[in-house]
Amino acid sequence: MNVDHFRRIGLLRRKMTRAGLPGLLVTHLPDVRYLSGFTGSSAALAVTRRGARLFTDGRYKAQAAEEVRVAQVEIVSSFPAKAAVEWLAAQPGVSGAAFDPARTTVAELRQWKEALPSSLRRGFLSSLPAPLVEPLRSVKDEDELELMIEAALLGCRLFEHVLGVIRPGVREVEVAAELEHQARLLGAEGMSFETIVASGVRSALPHGRATTALLPRRGFVTLDFGVILNGYCSDMTRTVFLGKPNAKERGTYQAVLEAQETAVAAVTAGASCGEVDEAARGVLRREGLAEAFSHSTGHGLGLEIHEPPRIGAGLNSRLVPGMVITIEPGVYFAGRFGIRIEDMVAVTANGGQVLTPTPKALIEL
Amino acid sequence: MNVDHFRRIGLLRRKMTRAGLPGLLVTHLPDVRYLSGFTGSSAALAVTRRGARLFTDGRYKAQAAEEVRVAQVEIVSSFPAKAAVEWLAAQPGVSGAAFDPARTTVAELRQWKEALPSSLRRGFLSSLPAPLVEPLRSVKDEDELELMIEAALLGCRLFEHVLGVIRPGVREVEVAAELEHQARLLGAEGMSFETIVASGVRSALPHGRATTALLPRRGFVTLDFGVILNGYCSDMTRTVFLGKPNAKERGTYQAVLEAQETAVAAVTAGASCGEVDEAARGVLRREGLAEAFSHSTGHGLGLEIHEPPRIGAGLNSRLVPGMVITIEPGVYFAGRFGIRIEDMVAVTANGGQVLTPTPKALIEL
Repeated sequence: MNVDHFRRIGLLRRKMTRAGLPGLLVTHLPDVRYLSGFTGSSAALAVTRRGARLFTDGRYKAQAAEEVRVAQVEIVSSFPAKAAVEWLAAQPGVSGAAFDPARTTVAELRQWKEALPSSLRRGFLSSLPAPLVEPLRSVKDEDELELMIEAALLGCRLFEHVLGVIRPGVREVEVAAELEHQARLLGAEGMSFETIVASGVRSALPHGRATTALLPRRGFVTLDFGVILNGYCSDMTRTVFLGKPNAKERGTYQAVLEAQETAVAAVTAGASCGEVDEAARGVLRREGLAEAFSHSTGHGLGLEIHEPPRIGAGLNSRLVPGMVITIEPGVYFAGRFGIRIEDMVAVTANGGQVLTPTPKALIEL
Repeated sequence: MNVDHFRRIGLLRRKMTRAGLPGLLVTHLPDVRYLSGFTGSSAALAVTRRGARLFTDGRYKAQAAEEVRVAQVEIVSSFPAKAAVEWLAAQPGVSGAAFDPARTTVAELRQWKEALPSSLRRGFLSSLPAPLVEPLRSVKDEDELELMIEAALLGCRLFEHVLGVIRPGVREVEVAAELEHQARLLGAEGMSFETIVASGVRSALPHGRATTALLPRRGFVTLDFGVILNGYCSDMTRTVFLGKPNAKERGTYQAVLEAQETAVAAVTAGASCGEVDEAARGVLRREGLAEAFSHSTGHGLGLEIHEPPRIGAGLNSRLVPGMVITIEPGVYFAGRFGIRIEDMVAVTANGGQVLTPTPKALIEL
């Protein structure tokens, strides 16, 4: 992989300068990975306008030396973030350092302050008014887009594979197990969230993780799953039908599909997240299904399965080329059935590029 | 399952009374699950000396009604913890509420304070000086011990199963995939951490997650893995040998095994965590292997894969009947090989009960 961490740190420094920040402490591991390439489970990254230093523990000595080019590496015996704060405070010309309050516990902040010389305890550390790294991460660079396309296509292959095992009498967990097994064999590090296989009346649960329930002779089966491949998450949903759907079931499926495709068509640089949500919601409202659509239309993803932006009602933030989002409207009727259809979509200047090309016409098995 | 959440909340209330706390906010999800039985991914539990109320969102309405007996359930549109703080502040006679600073972000605390009436903003919320729920969780009750025995035995079955696929030329990830697939088929909700299959020189990495590397014709293979079964984590490690070990390899294995068994024998109620660590470390020191043992001897586990107590050098905290810990000494020689052997052990008044009875004599494949 030839990822340009120098470019990313450069963009971050530009934001630090604009915000008047001489120092930044990065402790959220996906942020650390994004900026430095380090994939270990214990690390903190300190960034100043001139330097960058990654702190980790002895278990990761060899790994950090191999992965990290953009920062000096320092091995510490414990508490990498505390060491990073101490280092920042010792840098000449660094009069303060900011941290992300959404990624810092009250206990950590107290520990960091106690590690500072008493003259710096009050003013040195400051809470970022808004995240700095997250907005960078939400716009994928070319290296990342390639990885996300690979992850998305692996998801599509898995769906195709698992269609072969979906039949009445098979347990939901067996479908999930087969899918996850193939994912592993095809190179995934793991799944990006707990695989959802929700069949029959269970399809009405938006978060119906796979259980030992048997797939019914007749009814919808929703599969919602994602892999982690080279660190990047995929996410897709298809709902298939066991047996022959009746007119009502078929019609409801068509409505969700139309909502999904309308929202995909609304994805383009400059569109607001609320407009994209409304594209899906409007179709379902027209069909009298507004109340059955009980969640938002989608979310960004990348190194994490949920990242900004959120695609929800009334949200004004605008889509930017390079963002990768999900479009996943669904309808749920408790005790009866549910349907959800989800693609990953990359935002481009000329519209949305679907990364999960698996067909969406209703599959009857 | 017949878990006595009323008993657990009763024990918690006794601790609250002793600490002079009229109200407690519980936001760490494993703590919420332990106290209330709720397994959803979004919740906060408010506990007073008289009442308990669980806050979650609309996705979990049916599930919370089914799972939670010990608290009233309130469905909120967003931010369950904020709603819990507002509820606590509105309870007559509740003059303050404590939160766990290690489980609360700086941003959350700010949000909660802003939700309070201005007269309560300064004094109502307080930071717990030490966790209240974690110490309860570290001592398992009978229901939990049964579940942990089941999880541990499932791990043993998986190890036996996967021995059948370990041979030269198979990829590490294939071994991991087979193990995880079987885990799913045998009822596990998932794995308790990323499966480690580290073969040949990679066995020298304490955290060698499975890669596409081929198992060598000759060398050690370390398998370290755990399942989540009914919410409870298992954890075990065995190191096997492909081919014929030489005298040095065999001798090193025997030393680790002796260290492991000596530490298991040191487990008993009243022993300090440092004594148990020293039991393993002393054996390896005598064999000239002290430096190769670069981590601590073990950790508690339960609803989470890492829980108190830590079994490390110099730690004075004492083992209590009902604790479940791992004993997992290992030695690592960079660029050459590594060996680790790990059992789960329940602490009883009369010693330690090994929950992972898989034999530990060196297996040659």
